[in-house]
Amino acid sequence: MAKVIELNKSVTESNDRDAQELREELKEKGLLLINLMSSPGSGKTTLLSRTITDINDEAKIAVLEADIASDVDAVKIESLGAKSIQVHTDGMCHMDAGMTRRGLFGMDLSDVKIAFLENVGNLICPAEFDTGAHKNVMILSVPEGDDKPLKYPLMFSMVDALVITKMDTKGYFTFDLDACIEHVKKLNRNVQIFPVSAKTGEGMDAWEAWLKENLF
Amino acid sequence: MAKVIELNKSVTESNDRDAQELREELKEKGLLLINLMSSPGSGKTTLLSRTITDINDEAKIAVLEADIASDVDAVKIESLGAKSIQVHTDGMCHMDAGMTRRGLFGMDLSDVKIAFLENVGNLICPAEFDTGAHKNVMILSVPEGDDKPLKYPLMFSMVDALVITKMDTKGYFTFDLDACIEHVKKLNRNVQIFPVSAKTGEGMDAWEAWLKENLF
Repeated sequence: MAKVIELNKSVTESNDRDAQELREELKEKGLLLINLMSSPGSGKTTLLSRTITDINDEAKIAVLEADIASDVDAVKIESLGAKSIQVHTDGMCHMDAGMTRRGLFGMDLSDVKIAFLENVGNLICPAEFDTGAHKNVMILSVPEGDDKPLKYPLMFSMVDALVITKMDTKGYFTFDLDACIEHVKKLNRNVQIFPVSAKTGEGMDAWEAWLKENLF
Repeated sequence: MAKVIELNKSVTESNDRDAQELREELKEKGLLLINLMSSPGSGKTTLLSRTITDINDEAKIAVLEADIASDVDAVKIESLGAKSIQVHTDGMCHMDAGMTRRGLFGMDLSDVKIAFLENVGNLICPAEFDTGAHKNVMILSVPEGDDKPLKYPLMFSMVDALVITKMDTKGYFTFDLDACIEHVKKLNRNVQIFPVSAKTGEGMDAWEAWLKENLF
């Protein structure tokens, strides 16, 4: 059983200010906060598991798992030797900066270089709330289809990086990577795109190099 | 280009009453309304396409496509000869009864026996709003994983039927069908479960028989 914190809406209404304060405070501590957003089942936890296995020795990782219910993800992450905490959002479809702060500081963060917020699985609401992260990353899995940028434009337009997961299943689904990248670039010219398979390891190097470049 | 209606939040606050009125009115017209909910990319449109091909001659189908943006789904459905209309939710993460009414009555519904509302791709918010549908159906695709009932319990607990899609990919992913069904049945003892592949046709008979049983 992982440690679980029950959260609900932050008391303050000034989320943008809270987010900015959290971002600066974490930077001073030398802690990079990455907000990971995606649909349910896109492979966030599997991507994190592989990332932890690959680089946790170089850059210590902690994971804040946000879900409506359950602690299955936090238990998986802890089994890999990384720090993890589960937060429950009281039915809410996103995390805000106050919730992120309470979750993060529920962990011992000494020596931690990268904290991932694994946001609630949802392509809509999390895009609307600044969590205080330094980088926003979206995950799209091959089985979801290459048309998702057309349907959820806000999410694709506001992220710093897009990780396209489950690339090992590309032969099985009709997923046009070039078309997908073209849709995304129309919404967000500067986004970094990393096609990966956490299963085979394909593309993980580039994603992990990007993380390390962004360390404080 | 499909016909598109731009919607925003209904004027009335009494969604439950509106939903009940819509449900009764449609029943009088002999029109079954099915609310389809799922994650983005779970295969709602592919399931509908196959269902239209299989039973549109027996029971005429219309589809109300709800999305934040784009009309790709409505265009696909129309190409199969079914009636379809696209509604945009003005960034909202769900449909309510008033929005459903406006979308539905934007179509010519004469002779239509089943109207599907393809709700916004999201496992959280749509579960909280009664759309006026007679039956609520959730779609979970094999690539999303068998642990989703643990993470999104409200959605699984409130539906009449669960369609498990992309069963043809089961050999490729670690998806334990028995474990998934067990999780679901703990939340919802009476739910009908239909494992299907719209690609191979596996299981489509049972799903379509259930639809036909529910016709008015």
